Amino acid sequence: MVNLPGNQELFLGIDGGGTKCRACITDQDGMILGSGIAGPANPLHGIEETFESIKEAAELALEDARLPISAMADLVAGAGLAGVNLPSLYTVIDNWKHPFSALYLTTDLHSACLGAHKGGDGAVIIAGTGSCGYATVDDKEYLLGGYGFPFGDQGGGAWMGLEAIKAALLAFDQVGPKTQLTESIADFLQVRGLMIVEQMSKAKSSEYASLAPLVFQAAENGDPEGLRIVREGAAYISTMTHKLLAHEPPRFSILGGLSVRMLPWLDPDIKQRLSLPWDGPEVGAIFYAQQKMQLIRGD
Amino acid sequence: MVNLPGNQELFLGIDGGGTKCRACITDQDGMILGSGIAGPANPLHGIEETFESIKEAAELALEDARLPISAMADLVAGAGLAGVNLPSLYTVIDNWKHPFSALYLTTDLHSACLGAHKGGDGAVIIAGTGSCGYATVDDKEYLLGGYGFPFGDQGGGAWMGLEAIKAALLAFDQVGPKTQLTESIADFLQVRGLMIVEQMSKAKSSEYASLAPLVFQAAENGDPEGLRIVREGAAYISTMTHKLLAHEPPRFSILGGLSVRMLPWLDPDIKQRLSLPWDGPEVGAIFYAQQKMQLIRGD
Repeated sequence: MVNLPGNQELFLGIDGGGTKCRACITDQDGMILGSGIAGPANPLHGIEETFESIKEAAELALEDARLPISAMADLVAGAGLAGVNLPSLYTVIDNWKHPFSALYLTTDLHSACLGAHKGGDGAVIIAGTGSCGYATVDDKEYLLGGYGFPFGDQGGGAWMGLEAIKAALLAFDQVGPKTQLTESIADFLQVRGLMIVEQMSKAKSSEYASLAPLVFQAAENGDPEGLRIVREGAAYISTMTHKLLAHEPPRFSILGGLSVRMLPWLDPDIKQRLSLPWDGPEVGAIFYAQQKMQLIRGD
Repeated sequence: MVNLPGNQELFLGIDGGGTKCRACITDQDGMILGSGIAGPANPLHGIEETFESIKEAAELALEDARLPISAMADLVAGAGLAGVNLPSLYTVIDNWKHPFSALYLTTDLHSACLGAHKGGDGAVIIAGTGSCGYATVDDKEYLLGGYGFPFGDQGGGAWMGLEAIKAALLAFDQVGPKTQLTESIADFLQVRGLMIVEQMSKAKSSEYASLAPLVFQAAENGDPEGLRIVREGAAYISTMTHKLLAHEPPRFSILGGLSVRMLPWLDPDIKQRLSLPWDGPEVGAIFYAQQKMQLIRGD
């Protein structure tokens, strides 16, 4: 047991997604002691990788907090992970022989929303590798999208990347238009035509998402294929947003790696409803752990 | 060595695809002695499965021809397989320690075109699990599409199934329209919403393709989502067809499990150019083996 003033408990917050895993350690008053970032932690795309990334991020956060690795066993962890809305994945992660003193598991959406709104009611849209919407209002939960790649997540980076690959292949066959975007995809991958398929055939959603900046770049330059993809993605995000706002959440934020670049393409009224997020999803995961502990202890 | 009149050679033709593997055995005059059908043989989706399906289909064809299994080692095989236009897959299959006396390997498109036009010049569109176009005219080869799932193959069964799943998920979220198609997909899979993702998360292209009849059914009944998907797929197939016909092939055929149902949705002028295919792709694979043997022997 690590000695902290007044027998304080240590909390670990985990935010796991398709491209990276963020961890932070706080004391019970919410003071951040350290943080760490490791590789992908999306259980949909690899259970073992998820466990490894969570452990690595936690180790880096302990190191950053100048705490010994042995303090791992004292951490009360909250984790918000992509994919655990699927019952089978929730069970697999929940049965993990984790190295912490406790692990409270929820979706990445829930922890993101709790973080953005300091544990209170609100709505969030996440536009990163994937896309989804979430709101908690008056003890009711609303969830939209987040079905994963390649089923859904329109407007997310992986979806954009796949649409760009499709356009590049159609252009190569001269069945679709050859534009700045289709050329920049081929240049970026350094292959053309069939070799694109060979290179991407085992690609993860994070690799598709790495093409999203090219799609935004093309759209911003007025490229017709770039515009088509970004507008289709933005229309989906706008529709999700309006559905969430209909529940009248007190606050609304857009999160994720594509949020800033997506914003200009959304319906104009959305910008007026936007609040900046207060904390990150890894802090939201700690709020979740603390709320669950209170419920369990009956506080 | 099995004794046949006049020291005849025995030929095995293989047509491998995403849902099944067809085999036929002929004598050197092209008389069909037997045939067999086994499971999927698309090396893009499983190398070992491909080898197993080819062997099983060959065994069934030998049995059908009332030849002993030991005759396997005497068969001169030609195989047209999906995916072997990818250099890495071609090499893997070409290095297979196959049980035949020889194996001549080409793409499923090439063997289909040779079969449809009795080894002569011509063009084919294949609309089955995937979609693609191919023509040989005056010693030049033209290839369109066939990039595989989920990159391309618009208008193929797997693409249709994925589009239908996307529509069903958007309808479940009330972000897209709820129609006869989105309901029939949920009824067929016997699950809704997130459980669709759980059920399809490891699905192969053949499982997606099994949803294609529902999409055609919906379109034929005037369902707006069914119409949107079938029209988008048919527009792609029509564009590919016109590009192939521009090379003025002497014959043109549409092949594959969706060909009959797709035909009414294609541009009207395409029907006027259509010829019935003479032989199946498994017979085309035998033409390929015979042509290669002649080249090698210098006949």
